[in-house]
Amino acid sequence: MKVIGIRVKPRHERFDLFKVMVDSIRACNEHVEDDDIIVVSSKFAAMSQGRVIDMNSVVPAKDAYAISSMHNMDAKMAELVLREADHIFSGVPGFLLTVKDGMLAPNAGIDRSNVMHGLSILYPVDAFRVADMLRDKFLIHEGRRVGIVIADSRLMPTRIGTSGVALAVSGFEPVKDRRGSKDLFGNVMRVTLHAIADCIASAANLVMGETDESTPVAIVRGLSVRMDQRSYDWSDLAIEYEQCIYVRGLSMHGSKLVR
Amino acid sequence: MKVIGIRVKPRHERFDLFKVMVDSIRACNEHVEDDDIIVVSSKFAAMSQGRVIDMNSVVPAKDAYAISSMHNMDAKMAELVLREADHIFSGVPGFLLTVKDGMLAPNAGIDRSNVMHGLSILYPVDAFRVADMLRDKFLIHEGRRVGIVIADSRLMPTRIGTSGVALAVSGFEPVKDRRGSKDLFGNVMRVTLHAIADCIASAANLVMGETDESTPVAIVRGLSVRMDQRSYDWSDLAIEYEQCIYVRGLSMHGSKLVR
Repeated sequence: MKVIGIRVKPRHERFDLFKVMVDSIRACNEHVEDDDIIVVSSKFAAMSQGRVIDMNSVVPAKDAYAISSMHNMDAKMAELVLREADHIFSGVPGFLLTVKDGMLAPNAGIDRSNVMHGLSILYPVDAFRVADMLRDKFLIHEGRRVGIVIADSRLMPTRIGTSGVALAVSGFEPVKDRRGSKDLFGNVMRVTLHAIADCIASAANLVMGETDESTPVAIVRGLSVRMDQRSYDWSDLAIEYEQCIYVRGLSMHGSKLVR
Repeated sequence: MKVIGIRVKPRHERFDLFKVMVDSIRACNEHVEDDDIIVVSSKFAAMSQGRVIDMNSVVPAKDAYAISSMHNMDAKMAELVLREADHIFSGVPGFLLTVKDGMLAPNAGIDRSNVMHGLSILYPVDAFRVADMLRDKFLIHEGRRVGIVIADSRLMPTRIGTSGVALAVSGFEPVKDRRGSKDLFGNVMRVTLHAIADCIASAANLVMGETDESTPVAIVRGLSVRMDQRSYDWSDLAIEYEQCIYVRGLSMHGSKLVR
């Protein structure tokens, strides 16, 4: 497997995501092959949609101020999280732990890094449709059947530092059942399902991580995945948080079971 | 960046981990270069130590039976988890959510897959010292300065399927501070620290995942990491669970903050 980072000129306004990706791949003297998985950072996809917010324009409502003082966080950020999150569990200083598009994410994935001071980047709108669009355009304009991953980086429980997670995919099966035992649930699932798309996001993260602004695209080549033409959505990558062993196990905690 | 999977003949008894890795790399017509990161599955490392338990030999104590009926899980597995876990939060059917060596892990990382029926594999003993030993041996016997990752796969919150996590490392800086802002804590940490070792584990997972028994080793080449000779331990990769935003956020849940 090869992972090739693609440098891209930093951008600050809405732009044509596909065109910039293709032009940048050419400018790096790289090319696209059939069955390549092309990874693009969610932040870059969001920027192409103009999903950048000037924090000065955000007016916090009363509940945002309440949360802000409760969790020692910026009231404007609290306001944005309230607007963006599908569910908020609770908070720690500076952060609200939320669910957004089926993902457990601090602050609904809103990020203030790698943008000009005073701006925040939200998640891209309809990330799965963006991935489908990119896949279609690579087929139509480049004649290549590729897979797409829109990748974010995320803090994992108890770990130091972020690793990759797939916000959206298109063109390939994102979770591989290693034993063909699709009917099993619960404990069996943990060991038989392999989060290919999340692992791809982490692999790409290693070449994209250096300077987030300038290497937002990576090509993953030589990986054996099952290509397809389905339209995926978040429920193909994530489960409802009520079903999650971490959420359930931690919510019920207090009953210390150690000897 | 290149990731090369190394096939290894399945083993069932204690063996010399370094020798098997080197021999297998040669048998695959591959080689090791300076600055390569060599990934080995934690399960394979555990097998080399004979950390395989015959479930028939496990005699559950009273508290294991209690947990077993409370969480609808095998009493012998409950007994093993009680022995291995550093902390147990709670359980869901079939699983106990635990902390083991600083990592949040279902069932203390004990795994019954990819071993003969009736056996379970525990985590390797002193995984960081195993990593140091491998690094030293690659230097002494092969004349190569390499990094080592002992990798496990782990279910992430709300995700479907497992991705990679570094159980132990040696020879390189496992977490990269992307801004040189080592003095910052809290919300800043989330966006500035990059879990290189975990991402490497996930990248390797993509070539190792196919058949866990036969590809337990991978070589990651061409990655720019900071090589070193420190002895790391789990606190270089993980934080105390009491500090974790997920653990804290979820434990305090109940206060629904959505509008």
